[in-house]
Amino acid sequence: MLIQNTTNSFIDTLRHRRQRLANLIDFPAIIWSGGSSPRNFPANRFPLRASSHFLYFAGLPLSNVAIRLEAGKLELFMDDPQPSSALWHGEMPTRDEIAQKMGADGARPMAELELWLEGTATIAVQESATWTQQSQLLNRWVLPQSPPQGIDLELAKAITSLRLTHDDAALAELRKAAAVTVAAHKAGMAATPKAKLEAEVRAAMESVFIAQNMTTSYNSIVTVHGEVLHNEHYHHSLQPGDLLLADVGAETETGWAADVTRTWPVSGKFSSTQREIYNVVLAAHDACIAKIYPGVEYEDIHLLAATVIAEGLIDLGILQGNAEDLVQMDAHALFFPHGIGHLLGLDVHDMEDLGDLAGYEEGRERSDRFGLGYLRLNRPLRPGMLVTIEPGYYQVPAILNDPKLRSKYQNVVNWQRLSQFADVRGIRIEDDVLVTTEGSEVLTAALPNDANTIENLSKI
Amino acid sequence: MLIQNTTNSFIDTLRHRRQRLANLIDFPAIIWSGGSSPRNFPANRFPLRASSHFLYFAGLPLSNVAIRLEAGKLELFMDDPQPSSALWHGEMPTRDEIAQKMGADGARPMAELELWLEGTATIAVQESATWTQQSQLLNRWVLPQSPPQGIDLELAKAITSLRLTHDDAALAELRKAAAVTVAAHKAGMAATPKAKLEAEVRAAMESVFIAQNMTTSYNSIVTVHGEVLHNEHYHHSLQPGDLLLADVGAETETGWAADVTRTWPVSGKFSSTQREIYNVVLAAHDACIAKIYPGVEYEDIHLLAATVIAEGLIDLGILQGNAEDLVQMDAHALFFPHGIGHLLGLDVHDMEDLGDLAGYEEGRERSDRFGLGYLRLNRPLRPGMLVTIEPGYYQVPAILNDPKLRSKYQNVVNWQRLSQFADVRGIRIEDDVLVTTEGSEVLTAALPNDANTIENLSKI
Ligand SMILES: [Mn+2]
Ligand SMILES: [Mn+2]
Repeated sequence: MLIQNTTNSFIDTLRHRRQRLANLIDFPAIIWSGGSSPRNFPANRFPLRASSHFLYFAGLPLSNVAIRLEAGKLELFMDDPQPSSALWHGEMPTRDEIAQKMGADGARPMAELELWLEGTATIAVQESATWTQQSQLLNRWVLPQSPPQGIDLELAKAITSLRLTHDDAALAELRKAAAVTVAAHKAGMAATPKAKLEAEVRAAMESVFIAQNMTTSYNSIVTVHGEVLHNEHYHHSLQPGDLLLADVGAETETGWAADVTRTWPVSGKFSSTQREIYNVVLAAHDACIAKIYPGVEYEDIHLLAATVIAEGLIDLGILQGNAEDLVQMDAHALFFPHGIGHLLGLDVHDMEDLGDLAGYEEGRERSDRFGLGYLRLNRPLRPGMLVTIEPGYYQVPAILNDPKLRSKYQNVVNWQRLSQFADVRGIRIEDDVLVTTEGSEVLTAALPNDANTIENLSKI
Repeated sequence: MLIQNTTNSFIDTLRHRRQRLANLIDFPAIIWSGGSSPRNFPANRFPLRASSHFLYFAGLPLSNVAIRLEAGKLELFMDDPQPSSALWHGEMPTRDEIAQKMGADGARPMAELELWLEGTATIAVQESATWTQQSQLLNRWVLPQSPPQGIDLELAKAITSLRLTHDDAALAELRKAAAVTVAAHKAGMAATPKAKLEAEVRAAMESVFIAQNMTTSYNSIVTVHGEVLHNEHYHHSLQPGDLLLADVGAETETGWAADVTRTWPVSGKFSSTQREIYNVVLAAHDACIAKIYPGVEYEDIHLLAATVIAEGLIDLGILQGNAEDLVQMDAHALFFPHGIGHLLGLDVHDMEDLGDLAGYEEGRERSDRFGLGYLRLNRPLRPGMLVTIEPGYYQVPAILNDPKLRSKYQNVVNWQRLSQFADVRGIRIEDDVLVTTEGSEVLTAALPNDANTIENLSKI
């Protein structure tokens, strides 16, 4: 692990977060960092990704340590590096040095953690060696796939309430992630004319992250088959008539994420059908962002996107009827089957390790409607929340060829007309939008999204 | 998962491997593929890395499946994709299609695996959900960190005996990994004049892999502090007098690895001291490769490297005495503290998931000598083995400042003279060498390693 020097203001931020937690709970909490996971043998490991909750309060990407938070104080539990490790890893910072960098109020060896467990809550780490250790030490199951219970649930609620809105230090990191992501998308567009494979565009984009000591915040999607929504393969060749959909975001070294999608024509020129649909998606994108304001329900933003898309498809003759009615019957979801977006922060779907605890206002649950069930965020917006806005249009064979759906929507889709848009398999436009007291600020605004500029950026 | 079409010759190779296993054991074996590991939340996962043993017999990078091998026959246990997954992941191949691509003799749903467990051996997968499942189904601990016992040990010995030497299909993949790795190192050298940070050179190298749908076979080392042997950070700025050490290797989509190190001057020009030490390391490298021949003990190759390095350092006035005596007393290990190399195949340290079972001939154990204990391979060489040859020279502060070592080697090191070589912190030259009936073939020979060519490649 590389641990840079930290500033006083960084430490002040961390202390402020710890104090705010103390204002919400009256019991201690222990948050583990987690460690790296083995790849094909024990010494060959995936890169460390410390737990997001740990990063929020400790600020540093450490491996196999824990922090105990009580009444605003932080106690670090960490073993000093073995003297022999200096041979292979160079000089590592000591426990006391790390404690100082995170503004800890005390520091102890890991072995003493067992003396400090009574009445403490925790949150399950994803990495299995650590959640096993959490379960053993606390003598209860602490499982990453199960919802927390009792004081663990109280802790989770307190932390989500803090992490729902971002402080200045978080925003500074999120802006860094956004800026590097913008650069990566520009690099991807610039690399397209010479690229033969999706993989080559991906390489151009991810190398921007690597050069900045960042990683991807999720596995990139770079595909000419945007209609496959979760596509993590990059084998297709690029053909002149294709649209390339790139959903690629950076993560800073302390874990803060960006999440951006652009769709551009391989040839540098949209076909007329591609441009028409692109502009429908862009209209939905712009309408949603214009609507973002404190107090607005995110679900209404989603429904607005659905309505604008339905209107656009009516204008193009693909859908028939009245936009509000079509949205009511979920006809938009034939072409826009996912939600308008999600929370963004330390996780690309922020706090999704806790299920819908962060995404859904207390008392709300996922809808079972075709056009609403995949909505990941259902809360009134508040200043300091960062959300994605990512409308899309897809021709997903599993949807459009589904006999039940075809018969249900037989009369609202002009299938004949739709067939003329066969070259529009998948389009998404996604930006990262901060809710402000005045409305919103698009952190990724430096990346153009209008069709003409997109064409120019992806031309030789 | 993307599963390409496979050829008849690929299937023949897989069947041949299965038949050879059947010739060695008279009990059935079940090999699990393993699945991906979660990163910061369950839906955000590290890329899949299927178990190497699975890849050896099944050939395809599948997730959460198992194969049962008995008497040369393969039975695939796999669940068909859920119909709903087509919405998000597109159409996935069915169990029967996958079975056909790997030349399976039968295919069943995962739930039936429990009917086929009696008397079967297995090998622990690294990923925890799978080794937990292995342990539960077989009703014994199957742990990735513990040596196998009983029939599991017999299976492990049989598989290592097969995987120690490579068939033509394996060699074709290993040559692909080597070729892309050579290209990446050339890209790294070419990127150096304009790069300000280690990370930028790393980006230039790894983007070559990404563009070919390959990954790194281990976390890259790209550093101006080569004396930190396991250095996975890339934050240093590049200064004109620095040497940049890059230990970067590709892994093909079916898991076969390369492992290559080059060291080049940031300025495009070695200093005279850097060039002198570089040529000592290169002399050791060349001497070792010249010595590789069937029947030769790999430990003797290691000792040859130690001797050539000792001789070179005597010539430079850094060591004093007779080379053989210095190697006997491990004085070479002050500057070359690791082994000359290791097996290479599906794993970059091939089969190291089984400890030293593959690396050490039966009946041999690690030495506790300072100059031998880190040797990962101790066997007579055989045609078809692929090994790395990677001599190095490092000034590791934890070694050279160690009071015990300083006093032990007080009289054999000219510390005064050594101080004149302060600008040589770390040099390694590593190639991938196939043992052939005629001697050896360097799979990475297309990447130059002589000082003059290295200078030219890293110059503007
Ligand atoms: Mn998103
Ligand atoms: Mn190596």
